[in-house]
Amino acid sequence: MIRSLTNEKIKHVLKLKDKKYRQEYGEFVVEGTHLIEEAIAFGLCKFIFSLTENSPYPVETLQVSIEVMKKMSNLTTSPGMIAICSIQVSNALTDKILILDGVQDPGNLGTLIRSASAFGFRTILVQNSVDLYNPKVLRSTQGGIFKINYREIDIEKFMNEHQEIHFIGTDLASGIPFSNVHATPAKIALILGNEGSGVQTTILNKTAYNIKIEMQDMESINVGAAGSILMYAFSQMKGI
Amino acid sequence: MIRSLTNEKIKHVLKLKDKKYRQEYGEFVVEGTHLIEEAIAFGLCKFIFSLTENSPYPVETLQVSIEVMKKMSNLTTSPGMIAICSIQVSNALTDKILILDGVQDPGNLGTLIRSASAFGFRTILVQNSVDLYNPKVLRSTQGGIFKINYREIDIEKFMNEHQEIHFIGTDLASGIPFSNVHATPAKIALILGNEGSGVQTTILNKTAYNIKIEMQDMESINVGAAGSILMYAFSQMKGI
Repeated sequence: MIRSLTNEKIKHVLKLKDKKYRQEYGEFVVEGTHLIEEAIAFGLCKFIFSLTENSPYPVETLQVSIEVMKKMSNLTTSPGMIAICSIQVSNALTDKILILDGVQDPGNLGTLIRSASAFGFRTILVQNSVDLYNPKVLRSTQGGIFKINYREIDIEKFMNEHQEIHFIGTDLASGIPFSNVHATPAKIALILGNEGSGVQTTILNKTAYNIKIEMQDMESINVGAAGSILMYAFSQMKGI
Repeated sequence: MIRSLTNEKIKHVLKLKDKKYRQEYGEFVVEGTHLIEEAIAFGLCKFIFSLTENSPYPVETLQVSIEVMKKMSNLTTSPGMIAICSIQVSNALTDKILILDGVQDPGNLGTLIRSASAFGFRTILVQNSVDLYNPKVLRSTQGGIFKINYREIDIEKFMNEHQEIHFIGTDLASGIPFSNVHATPAKIALILGNEGSGVQTTILNKTAYNIKIEMQDMESINVGAAGSILMYAFSQMKGI
């Protein structure tokens, strides 16, 4: 059983709390059996640290002390297991894409990934947003993370290079009411913006059209809620 | 300028961090000018504490030191102003009602209140849920709190007493797909459940019908997202 924080494997996990190292090594850390089982199912679980000697999983496992587990964990109550997983980067684009321009709150990103997975928006492209592999985001995704393609992009450059995609912006100021939208092309990219300032104007100016969700006497709703409403509606909408 | 935490007004605000005292005094605390302006607009702002001597608002104001403000605040960065507001309890029922059975996460309750305000579900009835006047909830509502009737109830008792309302449960296990619902009676109550366990079976057994949101290869989505999807759809749906 490992009791020392100077163990190389443990030091490696601690480094992965930092986005820079996650990118350098192409790895991130998940906590708890639910996320670990999802990672194993997708072939992305590389190594497990466990409080118990025997693990039920077919992955190399190292037993660690409670103190070491507490140091590795980002949770108030540290879980019985932590795993190192591979970051999977794919250039594939699904028909339905979610683009995020500056989403900052980890809970909002997690909610959006979870809903995107549920409603078939399996490619998520981001610019200036909170890191997907941030522990708070991972917890909110509830395993949705393993079902998506995720990449950081330059949104305007991507729009220029993908004229075949129908880009749909969200704009509380001058979007068309969403209930006016009754059908959708197959290849769409829904663009959601920052919690305070929304989608940048230079991006809104390049879309096919921009929409707003009709509201009664409120200025806005939470971006995770708004994105979920729109993705569900598009997943149910008839084609053009 | 008040510099002492033994000042009676300051002690009162500190007490209001506790749900028991909020209920005893019928008061709660909001932070920051956005929520304070909303409270004033609804005639619910009773007293303001400010870092500056002059306040732009027509409400009795006491100047306090930065140290006192920090003690009163629940934010990492304390705001320039904090206010005591009246809890408004109304027995009125709007046509559209949101019922929450054990929602525990403050961010989820805040998101639901914000969406409920936006989509005309202006009565929110809760059982075993996180307190509305919890500072984290208040921040997530973004002012939506002042536009709703909110009460703690016994859900089954309420259902027995209001046969005129069409109760609609949410049930991932055996609800009907939501896309099968095309029209709605005027008086509805949408019931959402706990993040882990959903709506209690005894409640689901008493509804007009139970629905589920169609998902692809995910077990569930965030309850704030699910509630927002359903409330928006009902707000747009034609009547029966």
